[in-house]
Amino acid sequence: MSQRVSDEVVAMAMGELRSGHSSSRHVETLPYVHKVGSPPKQTLFQEIKHSVKETFFSDNPLKEFKDQTIRRKFVLGLQAVFPIFNWARGYNLKAFRSDFISGLTIASLCIPQDIAYAKLANLEPQYGLYTSFVAPLVYAFMGSSRDIAIGPVAVVSLLLGTMLSDEIKDYHSHEYLRLALTATFFAGITQMALGVLRLGFLIDFLSHAAIVGFMAGAAITIALQQLKGLLGIKNFTKKTDIISVMDSVWSSVHHGWNWQTIVIGISFLVFLLITKYIAKREKKLFWVAAIAPMTCVILSTLFVYITRADKKGVSIVKHIKKGVNPASASEIFFSGKYLSAGARIGVVAGMVALTEAVAIGRTFAAMKDYSLDGNKEMVALGTMNIIGSLTSCYVATGSFSRSAVNYMAGCKTAVSNIVMALVVLLTLLVITPLFKYTPNAVLASIIIAAVLGLIDIQAVILLWKIDKFDFLACMGAFFGVIFKSVEIGLLIAVAISFAKILLQVTRPRTAVLGKLPGTSVYRNIQQYPKATQIPGMLIIRVDSAIYFSNSNYIKERILRWLTDEETQRTGSELAAIQYLVVEMSPVTDIDTSGIHALEELYKSLHKREVQLVLANPGPIVMEKLHASNLTDLVGEHKIFLSVTDAVATFVTKGSEL
Amino acid sequence: MSQRVSDEVVAMAMGELRSGHSSSRHVETLPYVHKVGSPPKQTLFQEIKHSVKETFFSDNPLKEFKDQTIRRKFVLGLQAVFPIFNWARGYNLKAFRSDFISGLTIASLCIPQDIAYAKLANLEPQYGLYTSFVAPLVYAFMGSSRDIAIGPVAVVSLLLGTMLSDEIKDYHSHEYLRLALTATFFAGITQMALGVLRLGFLIDFLSHAAIVGFMAGAAITIALQQLKGLLGIKNFTKKTDIISVMDSVWSSVHHGWNWQTIVIGISFLVFLLITKYIAKREKKLFWVAAIAPMTCVILSTLFVYITRADKKGVSIVKHIKKGVNPASASEIFFSGKYLSAGARIGVVAGMVALTEAVAIGRTFAAMKDYSLDGNKEMVALGTMNIIGSLTSCYVATGSFSRSAVNYMAGCKTAVSNIVMALVVLLTLLVITPLFKYTPNAVLASIIIAAVLGLIDIQAVILLWKIDKFDFLACMGAFFGVIFKSVEIGLLIAVAISFAKILLQVTRPRTAVLGKLPGTSVYRNIQQYPKATQIPGMLIIRVDSAIYFSNSNYIKERILRWLTDEETQRTGSELAAIQYLVVEMSPVTDIDTSGIHALEELYKSLHKREVQLVLANPGPIVMEKLHASNLTDLVGEHKIFLSVTDAVATFVTKGSEL
Repeated sequence: MSQRVSDEVVAMAMGELRSGHSSSRHVETLPYVHKVGSPPKQTLFQEIKHSVKETFFSDNPLKEFKDQTIRRKFVLGLQAVFPIFNWARGYNLKAFRSDFISGLTIASLCIPQDIAYAKLANLEPQYGLYTSFVAPLVYAFMGSSRDIAIGPVAVVSLLLGTMLSDEIKDYHSHEYLRLALTATFFAGITQMALGVLRLGFLIDFLSHAAIVGFMAGAAITIALQQLKGLLGIKNFTKKTDIISVMDSVWSSVHHGWNWQTIVIGISFLVFLLITKYIAKREKKLFWVAAIAPMTCVILSTLFVYITRADKKGVSIVKHIKKGVNPASASEIFFSGKYLSAGARIGVVAGMVALTEAVAIGRTFAAMKDYSLDGNKEMVALGTMNIIGSLTSCYVATGSFSRSAVNYMAGCKTAVSNIVMALVVLLTLLVITPLFKYTPNAVLASIIIAAVLGLIDIQAVILLWKIDKFDFLACMGAFFGVIFKSVEIGLLIAVAISFAKILLQVTRPRTAVLGKLPGTSVYRNIQQYPKATQIPGMLIIRVDSAIYFSNSNYIKERILRWLTDEETQRTGSELAAIQYLVVEMSPVTDIDTSGIHALEELYKSLHKREVQLVLANPGPIVMEKLHASNLTDLVGEHKIFLSVTDAVATFVTKGSEL
Repeated sequence: MSQRVSDEVVAMAMGELRSGHSSSRHVETLPYVHKVGSPPKQTLFQEIKHSVKETFFSDNPLKEFKDQTIRRKFVLGLQAVFPIFNWARGYNLKAFRSDFISGLTIASLCIPQDIAYAKLANLEPQYGLYTSFVAPLVYAFMGSSRDIAIGPVAVVSLLLGTMLSDEIKDYHSHEYLRLALTATFFAGITQMALGVLRLGFLIDFLSHAAIVGFMAGAAITIALQQLKGLLGIKNFTKKTDIISVMDSVWSSVHHGWNWQTIVIGISFLVFLLITKYIAKREKKLFWVAAIAPMTCVILSTLFVYITRADKKGVSIVKHIKKGVNPASASEIFFSGKYLSAGARIGVVAGMVALTEAVAIGRTFAAMKDYSLDGNKEMVALGTMNIIGSLTSCYVATGSFSRSAVNYMAGCKTAVSNIVMALVVLLTLLVITPLFKYTPNAVLASIIIAAVLGLIDIQAVILLWKIDKFDFLACMGAFFGVIFKSVEIGLLIAVAISFAKILLQVTRPRTAVLGKLPGTSVYRNIQQYPKATQIPGMLIIRVDSAIYFSNSNYIKERILRWLTDEETQRTGSELAAIQYLVVEMSPVTDIDTSGIHALEELYKSLHKREVQLVLANPGPIVMEKLHASNLTDLVGEHKIFLSVTDAVATFVTKGSEL
């Protein structure tokens, strides 16, 4: 009751305002002084130019090149391709000291990981080290992230390992290695092509939720795979799904496990997990976790060398080839039956690697507040993998764990990657023979400790809290990976992401609006129960561009609102509906199907003796309404700047405004 | 200048209002008396129920079943599946008279078309007649459209013909017929499944624009194919692309054309086109065009019979099997190598047939203002084709041309289809032998005259005027069909439609808002050049739900607006930007990626010392902002009901409100 009174007060106040003393005041306070604007008509060329620009060049990459001399343009171009020329001139000793320390830290972390990850990809251990030498060097020259640590990563290694051995069962064969290099080459081509063609936005189609699930699934799959090394099992399944793996583990429990291996593996795993826990509790002690893997390798290698545990069934690395990366251009399949398989695997691995690198790059760029050009980054990563494939590297990308350590160790520029690469080079040249007695169990525990960090339970909880559909996508990818395979998980992740997009475009939301008492604001009556409807009017907001994919739904949904409201209002004081106002503020675009739908809506309403009124159509919509002559059908005088204006025009005096 | 003055007047008036005499008035007129509403929290079940309902049951199909007795529910269920029980009780003699006349009219049109279209599908002529007998009968009982005329149609026949003969070259073989029936069966299954699973909205993904292009392309392809019959060419290519066909035509110009055939064909074609022109000019004379094909058949058959022109190289129909449809359940491939081909062709043909039928149904339903349940319609069409495949019919659907004639002849219900079916039955039983001497050239001219109606130049012009992208989709499908094949054209149509959807979701629009002088309305400054920006503030409207596919773009686009505006405002009176208001009215939903993007936006703005302010987030967005604690980060006091409120709060007194 009091609400109604206060409403009347406002109505009075507004009336006072409108019938004010001076005539100028009178005119200006009428709410409908402005007509709905039509923007200046664009030519076809302008229109195409605009949409191409927003789609592919939304970051305006050539802005700096404008109005420059040719010489300057050349320098800018060089700096654009090789950002190192940009920051190298301002580089100083202080920055180098930070980069040197962080470079050493990530090197000590990456060397054991490289050896372990290469095994995930079914490659010999030195290929992991090769990848950590060439790739970071290339990236340091071309990449624009300052914090990313480049090298082989667990998930991509696993993905490569499974996909490659689907093609070639015998992964000791030379063919297998060649296919891996071919896939790496095409991964690079894919990444570079996406960058050059400015199609970087395609990776946005893999939703965050799907990635969280995929990563967690991959982490568990990888950890389970390590049970082989950790328990010293000899006959292990080649499948990656949880059921096959657990079956392998249980069936070998009586005569396949090796207790010496288990002791070494479990004790170092516990050690690693403790260091990780310490680093998490006390951020300053991050280096404890960073150097722990190297410590494990050294200690365990010494232990095995002294006790000769390898004679008692503890499996060891045995042999890592000494020396720098051999050239491998001639190894790539540019023809023959493996070409298409290599290209296919390369495209998938390249996309996944890209997703990871871009996510890492963006995260750290946001933390240090510098900007990262996604497309340029893709060109850098692509070039890196192409050069890598010619120098015996397999697919490299940014590593979550090592990038975090790099950041915490205080890296300033990509120089830390160069330092790391040089340490790896030294390792390759001098100390690889020392890894001979490193037990595989320790490598397994290093992998397990590393991949556990990929399981982000907090993120999953947040997904559940914020968006149930996202949670579903996450779980789909997760279970797909652990019960089937990484590829199936990836496929599910992409499929669910697309389903969500399609759902979004076919079933846009609509809302009935009411007036908030005491204001001239119209809002969703479900969100604001106080909002009141206008007698004789139904106001509906359409919350999406009207395209072929939803035009029919929108038309029928509006008619259904009308039917429902008419039923509801029967006998109430709101009386019969004479005007249906479609609030079009959110309708940013309309296509021919949308125009047809509006036309059909108009006709259906006409038959029901309800008048169609449009409020606030945007510039593009106005242009198309004019082009299709729909404005003439509906009537120019029924298109308003705002709902308030429409209500003011059609509601007869005396009723509550 | 005057604008500024009038603005001040309004500001004064508003100030007066606010500092009004009575205190109650004071409170009520403050614009920010309402807080942003959060809707009552829904349980997970409610949430899922709601979205499933909107996606699959948006038409609320079970509404009528609510609160009814079981007996009544059974009757309603029966009526739902067989709408004939619904309208048959009210059926009267007057309606029957109309239906009888329109039924006869479409029968006279369909008989020659059936014979001709069956040839397009490479089937014997009687199969066209079979299809026009069983299918309309089934539809009459189950369909809910009153105007559609059911039977074989040109485009689906052509599509079937090409796809089937890709599988089985020899279309005289019994295998070919069996594959056609298999495809029909699966077309029916597809249609029925889409209806039962309520996935009818999937056909909305084929955009109107793409269909216009596809239809026009198919029409031209079909017309070109008829040159074989029209010119009496014996060695004709089996390909359908324009280049192969024209090549066939020119290479046979000297010794392949038959002048008697050409005379018959061209003269009847001219006759048909003239009748069509008359019908178009004078709507009342539509029957002239409707009975013209039958007249042509009768006249030409008589002519050939009398002159024995078939001995002079005029090719004739020769033989149509007499009698009613034979059973064909045992002919369908339920196993073997053709099963998968049949299923694949069936799915494609079923979808295309569905698109055509639904488009026709909707058009006429809108014209007579009755509603059509898309999903129910699909079940009817599916059942019709399944039963059809068991009784020697091939894929039937609604025909554009015959439905239009049916409508103009004044049909009232599906009884006109029954009348037509009975006439076809009579034809099959009695007069098929009379078609022996019908020249193929006349059938060719009947097809050409019929398919020309599928080329809708007006629609193409409208596409060009309204939406260039739609025009592109149309042309893509068109050229795909005429230069490659119907399948390729269809593929292009679907691909372009999808590309448009993806573009829509990855690159949503954003707009800078300004205040319209003399109002409290904020609008796009590009559409309303008079709108003025607020000093110290930048107001940006995001015109789309924020999802993973666009969250990153939206964040970066907002930051780019800020940078651009800061550059532009340097030195102007609008001063440095302190507040960035994101108008979120059109943002109907947000997912976890969107929340992350907002968080990152907040951080970036924080570093630039700009405050993030949100205006009018919708119910779902508010809920998720709360769930993710983003409201705490941004601050509850920086989330406003409207832009007006935000401006009023942050702009210091004295500056122009």
